[in-house]
Amino acid sequence: MSAAQVIETFFNPYAIAVIGASRDPEKPGYVILKNLLENRKRGILKSRIYAVNPKATEILGVKCFPSVKDIPEAVDSAVIVVPAKIVPHVLKDCGEKGVKAVVIISAGFSEIGNVELEEEVRNIALKYGIRVIGPNCLGIYDAYTGMDTIFLPLTKKLRDGRELISAPRPEPGYISMISQSGALGNAALDYMAGEGIGINKFVSYGNKIDVDESDLLEYFVDDEKTRVILMYLENIKKGRKFIQIASQVSLKKPIVVLKAGRTKAGARAAASHTAALAGEDSIYDAAFKKTGVVRVYDMEEMFDAAKALAYQPPARGSRISVLTDGGGAGVMAADEIEVLDMKVTELSDETLKKFDELKRKGVIVPFAVTENPIDITGSATTEMYRISLELLLRDPKVDGVILIALHHIPGIPSIEEMVEKLSEVVWSHDKPVTVCVIGGSEAAAFLRREFDKKFIPAYPSPERAVRAMYALVRYGMYLNKRSVLSEYLKSWKPCETAMFR
Amino acid sequence: MSAAQVIETFFNPYAIAVIGASRDPEKPGYVILKNLLENRKRGILKSRIYAVNPKATEILGVKCFPSVKDIPEAVDSAVIVVPAKIVPHVLKDCGEKGVKAVVIISAGFSEIGNVELEEEVRNIALKYGIRVIGPNCLGIYDAYTGMDTIFLPLTKKLRDGRELISAPRPEPGYISMISQSGALGNAALDYMAGEGIGINKFVSYGNKIDVDESDLLEYFVDDEKTRVILMYLENIKKGRKFIQIASQVSLKKPIVVLKAGRTKAGARAAASHTAALAGEDSIYDAAFKKTGVVRVYDMEEMFDAAKALAYQPPARGSRISVLTDGGGAGVMAADEIEVLDMKVTELSDETLKKFDELKRKGVIVPFAVTENPIDITGSATTEMYRISLELLLRDPKVDGVILIALHHIPGIPSIEEMVEKLSEVVWSHDKPVTVCVIGGSEAAAFLRREFDKKFIPAYPSPERAVRAMYALVRYGMYLNKRSVLSEYLKSWKPCETAMFR
Repeated sequence: MSAAQVIETFFNPYAIAVIGASRDPEKPGYVILKNLLENRKRGILKSRIYAVNPKATEILGVKCFPSVKDIPEAVDSAVIVVPAKIVPHVLKDCGEKGVKAVVIISAGFSEIGNVELEEEVRNIALKYGIRVIGPNCLGIYDAYTGMDTIFLPLTKKLRDGRELISAPRPEPGYISMISQSGALGNAALDYMAGEGIGINKFVSYGNKIDVDESDLLEYFVDDEKTRVILMYLENIKKGRKFIQIASQVSLKKPIVVLKAGRTKAGARAAASHTAALAGEDSIYDAAFKKTGVVRVYDMEEMFDAAKALAYQPPARGSRISVLTDGGGAGVMAADEIEVLDMKVTELSDETLKKFDELKRKGVIVPFAVTENPIDITGSATTEMYRISLELLLRDPKVDGVILIALHHIPGIPSIEEMVEKLSEVVWSHDKPVTVCVIGGSEAAAFLRREFDKKFIPAYPSPERAVRAMYALVRYGMYLNKRSVLSEYLKSWKPCETAMFR
Repeated sequence: MSAAQVIETFFNPYAIAVIGASRDPEKPGYVILKNLLENRKRGILKSRIYAVNPKATEILGVKCFPSVKDIPEAVDSAVIVVPAKIVPHVLKDCGEKGVKAVVIISAGFSEIGNVELEEEVRNIALKYGIRVIGPNCLGIYDAYTGMDTIFLPLTKKLRDGRELISAPRPEPGYISMISQSGALGNAALDYMAGEGIGINKFVSYGNKIDVDESDLLEYFVDDEKTRVILMYLENIKKGRKFIQIASQVSLKKPIVVLKAGRTKAGARAAASHTAALAGEDSIYDAAFKKTGVVRVYDMEEMFDAAKALAYQPPARGSRISVLTDGGGAGVMAADEIEVLDMKVTELSDETLKKFDELKRKGVIVPFAVTENPIDITGSATTEMYRISLELLLRDPKVDGVILIALHHIPGIPSIEEMVEKLSEVVWSHDKPVTVCVIGGSEAAAFLRREFDKKFIPAYPSPERAVRAMYALVRYGMYLNKRSVLSEYLKSWKPCETAMFR
């Protein structure tokens, strides 16, 4: 069985044993069993589910086995939620049973100083050839197969009796995420669900005694539905392995990394958190640059970049044009483009000439500003947007367009029509476009979502749209440096399936 | 009549004439009249409303006068929405009628090269002593008095017949905003409405031939309900006046400025947009620093800072502590604190000793990290949060606290109880606290809103909570430098009225 096949077993096992299944609805051993059973009932999860608990005969209608060894059929995967000191024992049982992939949720290992116990677990895994995710982690979530070991309570109750979804799962999508922090990983899922960003696979690997970021990168590179790999990291233990694998992977798929602990104070905090020295940030930075990893610096930027890289093709260069109906937002975008060392490009003479002609003919308003940033003003219409965007994407001096659509103006009577018309233009070219729609109104949120549905990523501020473009520019420039950009663009395809409700 | 009294007339006139009232529902002259009439019907707007249109006898049930001069009673304020070339004529009428405050919505002046026409308008205003906001602007909105000249369509229609709110007005609140860009100002209102950030007064002054940012600062400093003044600027024409006034104002109220056009490309764009040279950004930067203006660099940061400055007291220094239940988010906060040149402070020996005692007694979990950032882990409870926050706010080495509340953990069974308990702690001290709640789930959004309701500003990422704190630190340090901080804090009072639905 290849390494990739074993990793696949985590997400799509033939059978899964919940070791430490519990009758107490507050306990992870209950929540996990319940979620798995529900996913199977809903027809998503195909795996057989077994409960292991020597003190119970039945939980949630499922028969309990005293040990995984007592299960009469083959079991290839297990999730362990027993107290730390029993983990070696049940892991040995897994080994004897022939279980190949084990998620250890249990905490109480090196993160609180129990280094020897962790070492014992590692040795058992090695002896039996078991691949382990964890311990001290949230485990995994796969939106397509329904594998789900996230044990946090699904809802919070309010005093008036209402129950609010507290730990939502994002819709199926194109992003796979690896998080060294469980809490942050879960918060990230919450964020993605709220923003309508789809997920493919999620892994929180905690103390990573075995499966690490490099193993997962190797797996995700060939995972069909993964278009972007997202990582929250505090340290990388096997640097050489990471560099070797990441440079290969990023030739095929973009990797976005948020590496925390980049300042002295942050590194100190990371050392307390994940019990490992973070090392000099400049070393990480050099490694990321060398391997084509798109580094981001905060959580919002991480998801903004991920959405852009999942939906849009990488840029051929850093010459960016802005198209707006509001001058102020255009100025803000131009500022951010220059701050990020991209170019507010000059347009070609031909484009300028055509814009002049359009103004003369009254196709666009005569007082529109047609030098980049292009400001078609509050008198803009959907048709002016369409024709201007077409001109810009055709211009050989333009590598990408920031489309600012302040929807308030009367000239955009139908926001649905606008998205349809502009999306046709975008998808008849292979240059990236990111969109800014400012506002929290129903119309603003709807418009952003409509663009997202057409895989044209939309953001609530000019700066965020520009930073998302910056991810596409950096990734394109890496591919170009490695001389694979044209080939990459030739085989690049837009997202196909709808990942939206 | 003092200058401040005239400015007050804009927001709270005795009578307002809509000059250019229209029968066409698509026209600004219709939308404005309709909004004013509705605000009067709802009992918010107290002003008498008159319609002026020589070609109509009645619009929306209101009698039309051929000229403002024909109105039989006194009129102190007018909004002009006639074509540019008729503006001088109707403004003269206003002068003869004794109108003191005029908003000129009409566009078609210096912004498209009609400099002479603009000059003519300015001269008429000067001659009659009329104060003018505009031309080429959105005008004003006052959430308390119901004055509202924003003429953009309120809703957008979808194909299925639904109507989505497109140009919402934020709830009444504590922030007053000045925007040099109309479109951006309107987008900002849309953003505030969505985020639940209240507004007091909003001014879009367009070509600012008369009333400018300095006049408005002078007015807002004594405007009771204005706690924070927000400005979107592309240029300041009268620099000396601004410096003189802003330095006075910011001793009493924080001013937050987003100055766009700070790069070469941005300045070029701003020159096309507002027809004025922006000047070297370093000059602006020096002026802002000198006058205590809190400068921000993007739209999100602008509102994040405004919310923090409206709700929380300024910080006495830059020594910040982080309290979290998720290690990763704590690391991210620590990074951002150091990046912004604040300190992830050491705690005093007494605090450290007390934390040790709490761990020994099992009041907080024994494996909690009690050096800053304080990580009370996923095993945290509301009570652990409460007692830890109290210790931190009491510590003389702590100037402010970043409270990270990842709500997913089982130890926070009631998010309402959590907010109540923590808010009691926060408001028994006078040090600023900003909150991070990550996620887009119902529970995350609800929790953020509950904190906001208690005027403890909450943000969806660690970095945004830290940047909001940074605004409080910078403002506090300015007050300190000017030796007025203790006095300021002594008279500082929390927000009193609820500004939430």
